[in-house]
Amino acid sequence: MAKPVVGIIMGSDSDLPVMSTAAEVLDEFDVDYELTVVSAHRTPQRLFKYSAEAAERGIQVIIAGAGGAAHLPGMVASVTELPVIGVPVKSRTLDGVDSLYSIVQMPPGVPVATVAINGAKNAGLLALQILGGTDYGLREKMRQYKKDLQHMVEEKAAQLEQQGWQAYLAKMEKNKG
Amino acid sequence: MAKPVVGIIMGSDSDLPVMSTAAEVLDEFDVDYELTVVSAHRTPQRLFKYSAEAAERGIQVIIAGAGGAAHLPGMVASVTELPVIGVPVKSRTLDGVDSLYSIVQMPPGVPVATVAINGAKNAGLLALQILGGTDYGLREKMRQYKKDLQHMVEEKAAQLEQQGWQAYLAKMEKNKG
Amino acid sequence: MAKPVVGIIMGSDSDLPVMSTAAEVLDEFDVDYELTVVSAHRTPQRLFKYSAEAAERGIQVIIAGAGGAAHLPGMVASVTELPVIGVPVKSRTLDGVDSLYSIVQMPPGVPVATVAINGAKNAGLLALQILGGTDYGLREKMRQYKKDLQHMVEEKAAQLEQQGWQAYLAKMEKNKG
Amino acid sequence: MAKPVVGIIMGSDSDLPVMSTAAEVLDEFDVDYELTVVSAHRTPQRLFKYSAEAAERGIQVIIAGAGGAAHLPGMVASVTELPVIGVPVKSRTLDGVDSLYSIVQMPPGVPVATVAINGAKNAGLLALQILGGTDYGLREKMRQYKKDLQHMVEEKAAQLEQQGWQAYLAKMEKNKG
Amino acid sequence: MAKPVVGIIMGSDSDLPVMSTAAEVLDEFDVDYELTVVSAHRTPQRLFKYSAEAAERGIQVIIAGAGGAAHLPGMVASVTELPVIGVPVKSRTLDGVDSLYSIVQMPPGVPVATVAINGAKNAGLLALQILGGTDYGLREKMRQYKKDLQHMVEEKAAQLEQQGWQAYLAKMEKNKG
Amino acid sequence: MAKPVVGIIMGSDSDLPVMSTAAEVLDEFDVDYELTVVSAHRTPQRLFKYSAEAAERGIQVIIAGAGGAAHLPGMVASVTELPVIGVPVKSRTLDGVDSLYSIVQMPPGVPVATVAINGAKNAGLLALQILGGTDYGLREKMRQYKKDLQHMVEEKAAQLEQQGWQAYLAKMEKNKG
Amino acid sequence: MAKPVVGIIMGSDSDLPVMSTAAEVLDEFDVDYELTVVSAHRTPQRLFKYSAEAAERGIQVIIAGAGGAAHLPGMVASVTELPVIGVPVKSRTLDGVDSLYSIVQMPPGVPVATVAINGAKNAGLLALQILGGTDYGLREKMRQYKKDLQHMVEEKAAQLEQQGWQAYLAKMEKNKG
Amino acid sequence: MAKPVVGIIMGSDSDLPVMSTAAEVLDEFDVDYELTVVSAHRTPQRLFKYSAEAAERGIQVIIAGAGGAAHLPGMVASVTELPVIGVPVKSRTLDGVDSLYSIVQMPPGVPVATVAINGAKNAGLLALQILGGTDYGLREKMRQYKKDLQHMVEEKAAQLEQQGWQAYLAKMEKNKG
Repeated sequence: MAKPVVGIIMGSDSDLPVMSTAAEVLDEFDVDYELTVVSAHRTPQRLFKYSAEAAERGIQVIIAGAGGAAHLPGMVASVTELPVIGVPVKSRTLDGVDSLYSIVQMPPGVPVATVAINGAKNAGLLALQILGGTDYGLREKMRQYKKDLQHMVEEKAAQLEQQGWQAYLAKMEKNKG
Repeated sequence: MAKPVVGIIMGSDSDLPVMSTAAEVLDEFDVDYELTVVSAHRTPQRLFKYSAEAAERGIQVIIAGAGGAAHLPGMVASVTELPVIGVPVKSRTLDGVDSLYSIVQMPPGVPVATVAINGAKNAGLLALQILGGTDYGLREKMRQYKKDLQHMVEEKAAQLEQQGWQAYLAKMEKNKG
Repeated sequence: MAKPVVGIIMGSDSDLPVMSTAAEVLDEFDVDYELTVVSAHRTPQRLFKYSAEAAERGIQVIIAGAGGAAHLPGMVASVTELPVIGVPVKSRTLDGVDSLYSIVQMPPGVPVATVAINGAKNAGLLALQILGGTDYGLREKMRQYKKDLQHMVEEKAAQLEQQGWQAYLAKMEKNKG
Repeated sequence: MAKPVVGIIMGSDSDLPVMSTAAEVLDEFDVDYELTVVSAHRTPQRLFKYSAEAAERGIQVIIAGAGGAAHLPGMVASVTELPVIGVPVKSRTLDGVDSLYSIVQMPPGVPVATVAINGAKNAGLLALQILGGTDYGLREKMRQYKKDLQHMVEEKAAQLEQQGWQAYLAKMEKNKG
Repeated sequence: MAKPVVGIIMGSDSDLPVMSTAAEVLDEFDVDYELTVVSAHRTPQRLFKYSAEAAERGIQVIIAGAGGAAHLPGMVASVTELPVIGVPVKSRTLDGVDSLYSIVQMPPGVPVATVAINGAKNAGLLALQILGGTDYGLREKMRQYKKDLQHMVEEKAAQLEQQGWQAYLAKMEKNKG
Repeated sequence: MAKPVVGIIMGSDSDLPVMSTAAEVLDEFDVDYELTVVSAHRTPQRLFKYSAEAAERGIQVIIAGAGGAAHLPGMVASVTELPVIGVPVKSRTLDGVDSLYSIVQMPPGVPVATVAINGAKNAGLLALQILGGTDYGLREKMRQYKKDLQHMVEEKAAQLEQQGWQAYLAKMEKNKG
Repeated sequence: MAKPVVGIIMGSDSDLPVMSTAAEVLDEFDVDYELTVVSAHRTPQRLFKYSAEAAERGIQVIIAGAGGAAHLPGMVASVTELPVIGVPVKSRTLDGVDSLYSIVQMPPGVPVATVAINGAKNAGLLALQILGGTDYGLREKMRQYKKDLQHMVEEKAAQLEQQGWQAYLAKMEKNKG
Repeated sequence: MAKPVVGIIMGSDSDLPVMSTAAEVLDEFDVDYELTVVSAHRTPQRLFKYSAEAAERGIQVIIAGAGGAAHLPGMVASVTELPVIGVPVKSRTLDGVDSLYSIVQMPPGVPVATVAINGAKNAGLLALQILGGTDYGLREKMRQYKKDLQHMVEEKAAQLEQQGWQAYLAKMEKNKG
């Protein structure tokens, strides 16, 4: 296995169902990554060590997800000079607003590139766009990815128009049931 | 000067106008404290060192104030076994809600004793109540403090009733002008 | 049974599923506590009596949980000179924001040490940290507790790295089903 | 001076500029009232005594205003069987949302009749409507008051239509300057 | 059947499960009421007629519940000189915050006595407190009601203390299951 | 099939269950419309083309629904000179507040006529009111529609009053079960 | 003066500084309008009369602005079959969120076309777009208006690029001072 | 002048005082950029053209700032395959919450790297971190920048400790006055 260039970390293994979508999108683009648990509050030394050594190990972008008083992305960004992408994980009581504010409202000097609440897939895509700066093959794949998205929507639109919305909606509800 | 038992730290010297009220209340109770700046995001090593050594140096309670994505109190609490009191400092754009959520919504295992937005005075009083567990003189002073508060309110109420609210209000507005 | 040093009270017995986690953590640390219902709005005399007598009975910290217009923690704090820890219990209609604001936004002079919404476990831990000021055995246990938390996370991280996230996630989902 | 039938209380004399508008409207209707400071957090005994004795002293409605973690209206309502009107006073950091939630979100069994943030004038009017149940003269005055409001608006509308909005607006701005 | 003195109205029959708790509490106190649907937006004439005639028909208090852009309570209050109690009904998308703000934030001159989101039971109790101004039997019953509430809580507290929280909690969960 | 005069578009086919209620109301009024998927973010060219050509094709009003960072209605409005009605679709994590703010807070110069969160039915009715400017038959139908709404509410009110709320509520719950 | 086709109403003359921007934009397009004060809460009969007669008098669109518990737009929409545009006016205590929710969250059956908080200028433009359905000259002017907006931005952009942002910013600050 | 590698765009020239801090930080690192106004709503064609051609012209990262219904960053990201950094500019009425939600809550497939409200300086730093992937000199400068930040804080802390907080605070207030 090749040396990972993206590090995906999360505050708790309970964040994995959300954060795994970042891994999936990197797999889709054949980009090597590592994925593990680093808790800002329960393993602060591990957080420091991870952040301080990531660049040396060849990591180029770090994706960090956490919920509630979500300090992981910001604290990683305080130690490393690599770009850090923060994923606010939806929390049990405040619908992710606490996670979002804890991650995005960083003070001048230490940015975290924040994506939507539970937006781990976009965190993966953003990592790919960042890596695309040195990897033109990757940038080309991203261009293709955007085209595929577009075609997928256009095809759905075509089907919806052809079938009529009543039939399309009926099918949607049948597929859910 | 005696060995400090309370540590007051803040994320930026711009928090001093708010955080100094914690120091004032400790001065009022003749409790020794230290006060300095420790930035979670700009001086992460200093944060770790401070938190790891505080107990050894005789600190018994830490008061930490920060604004925005306010990680200082929670990160200190992740390193030390001492009680940590968090003061959400009012932020420039979200009225302190970001500071409050970033401090109070800590995950199970790592508590931060959170007070009101800009509530540094109460942080000082809470520190005194905590110290009162081992210092009955302090607890007695706290009892007296509460009585003084009560008398102050009762005296104002008496004046207001005597003068009538129109006169009292006129005087209030004159004192402001 | 030994004399309790922590008092756990809640506004309604419907808060027990949340508040019992505070009791569990005190049990884990072998600290004696009492637990009962005191409603600020339905039993105001009981609230006054409880708060006024707690210190005399040997209670050193009070943990008070309530939801909605949550007045219990603040009113207890207005009567006693002991440290009071407030637990905002998640409410039926505003996701606990009303509970949080009603507890944390106390005026200067009367602090309540507020923890996260439904954060009763952390309320228990905070009580232990406060008691640790006079009980070095307890402080040592807290140090150990934090190490155990750390090891638990590290072990999960090791398993996740070894098994790969796909296998780990599949197992998680199987355990839920 | 006649025996007061309305009690106006507030948590701090700093609430007087807001709460005095309730007194003004009672003066306008020639209804006797008393006005004083009762702090839930700094004078809890005073709060109990006031609430327990109000009905006996002839008070028929209590208007209570407070800000932040505003416990005064709810705690008064927990002790007395009289109707209690709560005025959320605008707070320094959360724009009065904390005051509003702390007052309006009372649990089943103990209502507080809540008015708008800083809505003390309406608290006075509501008290008059409540007193109108036994005082048909008062009810008649309220009917007249509503007619006067209506005429005042209609007159402004007529002026605005006659003068044209440009002239009317110019005059408004001149009067402010 | 006696002439109703309380009018309970709601914007839609879908509000009935919430609003019926107001009726239940009036039944409990043997106070006559009427209950019907009046939609501010779908039956504006009906709203005007109802509000204009309520006092003549002997109604002394109106309880009005509505959700979303909840205009019913405020519009009723704009027409009648009777006290109007507003119940913000929890809405489908904003958790009742829209209902609450639409009801409580009335302009000076036209108060609505607002209770908690879905707090129809308290609306009923508040109506009883208002009626208690002319009906001392009712006021006495309210005093008794508050005592019963108190005893109910005290009894639950006694049981919880006797059985221990573990047993009590186990029984609670069994009763739910 | 006649030439459509209303265009209903949505950001994703997953918005169809909400947006189809706009189509239903247009069907009810026999107004011709087209319905398709146009994603601001995945098919930006399609968005431009659709918006630029709509007026030429005879479309007179556009209804656009989207959720989260909902840019579709505003971007359509930036290209076309037709009136654009925006429907904030309830989002997965912020209860539709993000959708609402993204749609309604347009800058001066480019309005979007925003309806309630998930309020697609009202979007349809608003489109009909707009078309009613040139089509007096339509305006007359709208007058009738409002009368029918009124009668429906009055009939429900009559049934509720006749049956008593207990019976009515019991039937409601039975119909749900 | 020609017969007005747009009615601009507001809940209070204090809303005029905001609402006058709607009038200005109609003036710019040479569209006749009327402007007056109609208070939902202080002049409910006037509100009904205005709404019921507007269509007969030739009004084709109504623009209604109000703040706080802003019931004016929704109540007008409940009476008339004309399209109603609602302008949430920024309130003194909740930053216009109460105004926005009270206006936009209308129930199915009665739409209000809501614009941004204080967005009266856009309300005027939306009225023009609606009138454009029967007035192609107006639609053409709207097309031109959008082009002018575009050119204004492009010209500013050109100046900014030519002068450099430092010079441009310096000039901006000088013009403010 | 060298070919710019960062594009800074904003929705209005009124955003320049905020957005210029991004330019300043790029100047400090000697990285070439271009800065201009591109309005999503007033110049949609310009937005498309800019986004479609940026990569070809050598731009590697785009920084886009906007307020209110802030569609600029997301729409740019929908067209280009370059990484886009979004700056929510504080709005006049909702304190920047509308800007933040409109920018950060992007749907899967189209990420925007969002920074704090008014956090344009961090947008500049994030751009530098992204460029650092291909430019090791830049990465080294970033490492130095973080060290400088750290020293600045440490120096302030040293001064504060030496002078005592009273003297330090007095000097702060004098410098403001």
